[in-house]
Amino acid sequence: MYDLIIIGGGPAGITAGIYASRKKLKTLILTKDFIGQTGLTGTIENWPGEKSITGLELMNKFERHLKNYDVEIKEEEVISLEKDKDFSVKTKKEEFNSKAVIIATGRKARALNIPGEKEFVGKGVVYCTTCDAPLFKDKKVVVVGGGNAGLESAIELTDHTSEVFLFEAALRLSGDEFLQERAKEKGVEIFTNRKIKEIKGSSFVEEVIFDDSGEEGKMQIEGIFIQIGSIPITEFIGDDLVDFNQSGEVVVDSKTCKTKTDGLFAAGDVTDARDKQIVVATGEGTKASLSAYNYLKK
Amino acid sequence: MYDLIIIGGGPAGITAGIYASRKKLKTLILTKDFIGQTGLTGTIENWPGEKSITGLELMNKFERHLKNYDVEIKEEEVISLEKDKDFSVKTKKEEFNSKAVIIATGRKARALNIPGEKEFVGKGVVYCTTCDAPLFKDKKVVVVGGGNAGLESAIELTDHTSEVFLFEAALRLSGDEFLQERAKEKGVEIFTNRKIKEIKGSSFVEEVIFDDSGEEGKMQIEGIFIQIGSIPITEFIGDDLVDFNQSGEVVVDSKTCKTKTDGLFAAGDVTDARDKQIVVATGEGTKASLSAYNYLKK
Repeated sequence: MYDLIIIGGGPAGITAGIYASRKKLKTLILTKDFIGQTGLTGTIENWPGEKSITGLELMNKFERHLKNYDVEIKEEEVISLEKDKDFSVKTKKEEFNSKAVIIATGRKARALNIPGEKEFVGKGVVYCTTCDAPLFKDKKVVVVGGGNAGLESAIELTDHTSEVFLFEAALRLSGDEFLQERAKEKGVEIFTNRKIKEIKGSSFVEEVIFDDSGEEGKMQIEGIFIQIGSIPITEFIGDDLVDFNQSGEVVVDSKTCKTKTDGLFAAGDVTDARDKQIVVATGEGTKASLSAYNYLKK
Repeated sequence: MYDLIIIGGGPAGITAGIYASRKKLKTLILTKDFIGQTGLTGTIENWPGEKSITGLELMNKFERHLKNYDVEIKEEEVISLEKDKDFSVKTKKEEFNSKAVIIATGRKARALNIPGEKEFVGKGVVYCTTCDAPLFKDKKVVVVGGGNAGLESAIELTDHTSEVFLFEAALRLSGDEFLQERAKEKGVEIFTNRKIKEIKGSSFVEEVIFDDSGEEGKMQIEGIFIQIGSIPITEFIGDDLVDFNQSGEVVVDSKTCKTKTDGLFAAGDVTDARDKQIVVATGEGTKASLSAYNYLKK
């Protein structure tokens, strides 16, 4: 029986873990890895005190700090969270119990949910540009999504290949004007009102089928970078343990990071916090951890 | 006319400044210095990514990061903040105007408010142990306050002198049990139910007068370290611009750091945020800055 189980090893979960360890709570951290969305970010310039650091370097610093403490860590993905008297947290391998839980699972890339997408993940279908762009040197690639993420992805890809196409389903791009200009300068070919319908190939992606202003079209490509936003990771949370907002985010009291269930807290990008920023997530992780400590002391 | 004036150069104010600069807001930071409560803290072990760093080193890192941006900084203390159509912020020397303001002034040491206290500040009366303890080598000193701050102060002083007395006005110490034990091991002599009434001396502190369980007493000493908590720095804030809670802290919405006045935001230890932690203050500074940006964009 643990005092506290922290689900997630990103900025919020790690900071919660540091604070819990310093409060001598018997703590277990369950996380798929210590990389997550931050670790996959190229350059970070807004973590206070670091003018410029890669996401992976920052995550490594956080992880080393955490592991300096006597905290138990298991790199396992959580598949269910229930509460009876205490909390039961299951991974594919094991079940753990605790008196308090912090949900800090963050977010994952939103999928298109079209035929061929799942089949070709890692075989031409990419959600993390920074991770995989160098693999597409001199190849013809499509970026899906005309927001900032899509534009940044396309701009990054022009360092590796000259054939970069960007497809946006809506009539207009939603990304910042200066990113749109930058993408054009870098030679990105932009199409709006063009909606991807299917991904085809044999062992790797070879073609995309799309609807272009009502007419079907197709294009031979070797890579498709899907950049249409992210969704909070919440599938494992048992019925009625938390409230969700319209975006599927866990609703918390932002002063304490409490959810509607006693002993259950949430922090970071999985929550309805307005600002999805690393420094905000670490602040909220601290609040959740100190709330868990106050709850356990009672 | 500035877009944004940030009052305060601690963790919250600096982070707000970094974010505002990145958003290209025309920003002015007004602060007495870039030291504050954090800079006077000995060792910090809970800033994510840094196992151990002095408060001053951390503040220096924050300051260097901020100054990397094109942000205007004036090291002047603010004496008044008013709002007519725009905000007017006055220092002893100048007046500045802006469309939005972030209050991030933090806290200062609480005073005893007894005769002799003000007179002998810097002449034996000390509020910052880390700053001045080495000046009291082999001298007889009193620490006032039996909470964690008082106990830590007394323990720190035993590295410099063997004659350390701790006075607590209440019947019991409120500090953590392990700090109480540590203080006793280090030879601190602890008195409860002993209330300081007056500080006497000629050019320097020489004597304290106190009430000990109803009887007047006195003790010859050379230093008095006052460690009875802190208060938010809010004197400059114009009437009715913000609400205060019972502790005199600025009430904010913790999701956005908005106060009750349009365009006026607050972040960090000056606010009613429950957790007075550096990492929380930086998170709230980010929220305040992004709220100011949203407000100015409208």
